[in-house]
Amino acid sequence: MRRTPRKGQKLPAVPAAQQRPATDGGIRRRRAGRPSSAVLDKAGITAAALELVSRKGYDGLTMAALAKLLEVAPSALYNHVSSKQDVLLLVEDHLMSLVDVSSFGAAPWDDAVRTWAWSYRNVFAEHTPLIPVIAVLPVTDAPQTLAMYETVSKGFLDAGFPQERIISAIVALESFIFGSAYDVTAPEDIFDPGTMAESTPYFTAAVRGAAGTALRGHAQAPEGSEAAADPLRAADAAFALGLDALVAGLGGLRKAE
Amino acid sequence: MRRTPRKGQKLPAVPAAQQRPATDGGIRRRRAGRPSSAVLDKAGITAAALELVSRKGYDGLTMAALAKLLEVAPSALYNHVSSKQDVLLLVEDHLMSLVDVSSFGAAPWDDAVRTWAWSYRNVFAEHTPLIPVIAVLPVTDAPQTLAMYETVSKGFLDAGFPQERIISAIVALESFIFGSAYDVTAPEDIFDPGTMAESTPYFTAAVRGAAGTALRGHAQAPEGSEAAADPLRAADAAFALGLDALVAGLGGLRKAE
Repeated sequence: MRRTPRKGQKLPAVPAAQQRPATDGGIRRRRAGRPSSAVLDKAGITAAALELVSRKGYDGLTMAALAKLLEVAPSALYNHVSSKQDVLLLVEDHLMSLVDVSSFGAAPWDDAVRTWAWSYRNVFAEHTPLIPVIAVLPVTDAPQTLAMYETVSKGFLDAGFPQERIISAIVALESFIFGSAYDVTAPEDIFDPGTMAESTPYFTAAVRGAAGTALRGHAQAPEGSEAAADPLRAADAAFALGLDALVAGLGGLRKAE
Repeated sequence: MRRTPRKGQKLPAVPAAQQRPATDGGIRRRRAGRPSSAVLDKAGITAAALELVSRKGYDGLTMAALAKLLEVAPSALYNHVSSKQDVLLLVEDHLMSLVDVSSFGAAPWDDAVRTWAWSYRNVFAEHTPLIPVIAVLPVTDAPQTLAMYETVSKGFLDAGFPQERIISAIVALESFIFGSAYDVTAPEDIFDPGTMAESTPYFTAAVRGAAGTALRGHAQAPEGSEAAADPLRAADAAFALGLDALVAGLGGLRKAE
């Protein structure tokens, strides 16, 4: 993948493997009709797709815009992906490959779920414009995504979950995770009642009571996570609280071992 | 609000109070520069905004498109709302006014939370394109929204919740609710592993085990809800399961009465 960003334009980080020396010097556009498929691969397409969504939101992700950013003819792009749906599967697969499932099989179920859930939330908090798409995108033909679900499903089964409840339990956790990812990006003053504070005394007192309350004695955030670094973050407090409840409640489904 | 929908074009329902007899007969467009502010009010603007989002997604909601749909000059629209942000507050307030908080104070806390949560999820399942916006929209100056939070906050306090944990508990529930609203719109085959079924045996078995499993003995859906009508719905099963866990887990925060 070659890119010629304009000066002063800040681009999201691209994996080092995708960066190539700018052998075309000052030349902005490559000759039309002569895309080199050698510089185009699925990882490069994925990185460019994420860059488009970061810059312009989900609606900015079109095959035409993708070809332009990659500086290839659309026909070259279609050699690698047959549709926008294909691109979305690549993006889904990439994001899911970033989610940490390493604790399943290595730590108790509760801990593994917490590690997975914090990691999953943090990945999507960085990519909220993709949540509406990926939350309803089939996993079919997405190998990394299926690998994540395979590891998590095995973790639940080994922990004693009845097989027929595993998917519901995972979906419940994912719903909480996706919603919580938005909350990470909410403004600090989202619950400021403004001029209506006097007419909403219970809510206003709850908002004021929450402000400044630390996670002390309740932090479930792994060491080094945002919550550990800044225990006051409201989004992390709510996530830790909800995750505790879900882990405890869902854990009750397990058969006695 | 007057609208002249094209023949055959299906429009989302508009509250009866917003419908006016078509006194302009076959005339499609009102004369430019002569908008009548008498036919324009906040409820009409809200209904038109929801209609735009339904038709064209969130990006379709612009002040220009709104004025066009309402058949008024933009200046007339700006007499009622000063910005798109104002329109969003109207939309937020309208949707939140549809959420059922009537059980708080009238039923035990657990039941009230369940009624509220199912209602909240169902409202947003009908308006998923607005979730990314409303999930991070400040509640300031949104009277109906604040009224909802006031009732819910009082319900939590009266049930024995420590004041400083009420907002976190509500946010945790809302995160689950927003994520679950997407799940209602997911395709039935979202977890079809396709050709990779053999390489993902645990996940595939879990998906097959879930299919056809009823909510029997576990249904928390209120009578008459979708889940009660169709107990097989996967989204409702996951929502009921997660909500049970959250209600049980969060309920543990309550002080002994």
